[in-house]
Amino acid sequence: MANERKDYELHTLSVLVENRPGVLARIAGLFRRRGFNIESLSVSTTDDPTVSRMTIVVGGDDATIEQITKQLNKLIDVIKVQDHTGEDVVERELSLIKVSCEPEQRSEILNLVTIFRASIVDVGANTMMIEITGTEDKINAMLELLRPYGILEVARTGKVILARGSKTT
Amino acid sequence: MANERKDYELHTLSVLVENRPGVLARIAGLFRRRGFNIESLSVSTTDDPTVSRMTIVVGGDDATIEQITKQLNKLIDVIKVQDHTGEDVVERELSLIKVSCEPEQRSEILNLVTIFRASIVDVGANTMMIEITGTEDKINAMLELLRPYGILEVARTGKVILARGSKTT
Repeated sequence: MANERKDYELHTLSVLVENRPGVLARIAGLFRRRGFNIESLSVSTTDDPTVSRMTIVVGGDDATIEQITKQLNKLIDVIKVQDHTGEDVVERELSLIKVSCEPEQRSEILNLVTIFRASIVDVGANTMMIEITGTEDKINAMLELLRPYGILEVARTGKVILARGSKTT
Repeated sequence: MANERKDYELHTLSVLVENRPGVLARIAGLFRRRGFNIESLSVSTTDDPTVSRMTIVVGGDDATIEQITKQLNKLIDVIKVQDHTGEDVVERELSLIKVSCEPEQRSEILNLVTIFRASIVDVGANTMMIEITGTEDKINAMLELLRPYGILEVARTGKVILARGSKTT
């Protein structure tokens, strides 16, 4: 029923976990059993080498996300789970984008790079590689503007977020 | 035996997969069964919404990495696996770092930010949040220099990589 999904939206979860083999498999297994498709995921160590931080973007309504959060909290390797939806956070992702670029097009692309405060990290005879950071929307907007030149390859990190001010996530 | 691990090193694998529920669980399960600890992982959609790209950093010697690559290739959702170790690639990751910062320390931290071509994305009464992109080594160097101020929180994306020039990964 359409009504059931009226509050379906993308949620960003920060999950602090013990940095041990198998943690990712257990968490990914939990999401699979629930039939959730993870939209994006970043896993990396924190400043404490025994702790990793996962940032998971997943779609669902409030009730199901709450359920997922509770189940994550039950896993022994999970230290803390937080749903940042609606909070005052800084969110960023990074993307490397390789586009076709004839020499006479370089200045056009350079203009786009300047407007988006991106940077050029590699230039080939007929290619350019651009590094851009920002919100998902900003990166999508850049991709749309680059599409006419011919996008050869894209690598995106998942999103990472931290709470603003002195609050910790 | 120490000898067996003489060529142990971190390998970066690009894995293109079908964007379907359960893919991550199958791949994470494969790594767990082999006892590999994933160092960092990024999963995100590519320019083709049916295809996701995983960038996996994992430690091992050449023979075991080759085995992992072969086994990944056998999974039905896996489109392509590539080990980029030793190739000419651009690699980047992004980190958000929140540090303690009294007002009189702001200019010192601003200097560091300028030197590292990082940027300040949030300022609180006694905190600053910094966004930095670069190689893992660059981000680690920045963290070491910020440590004396008091690092409150760190969120890092995993690494993403693309081959230089017209070569595609």
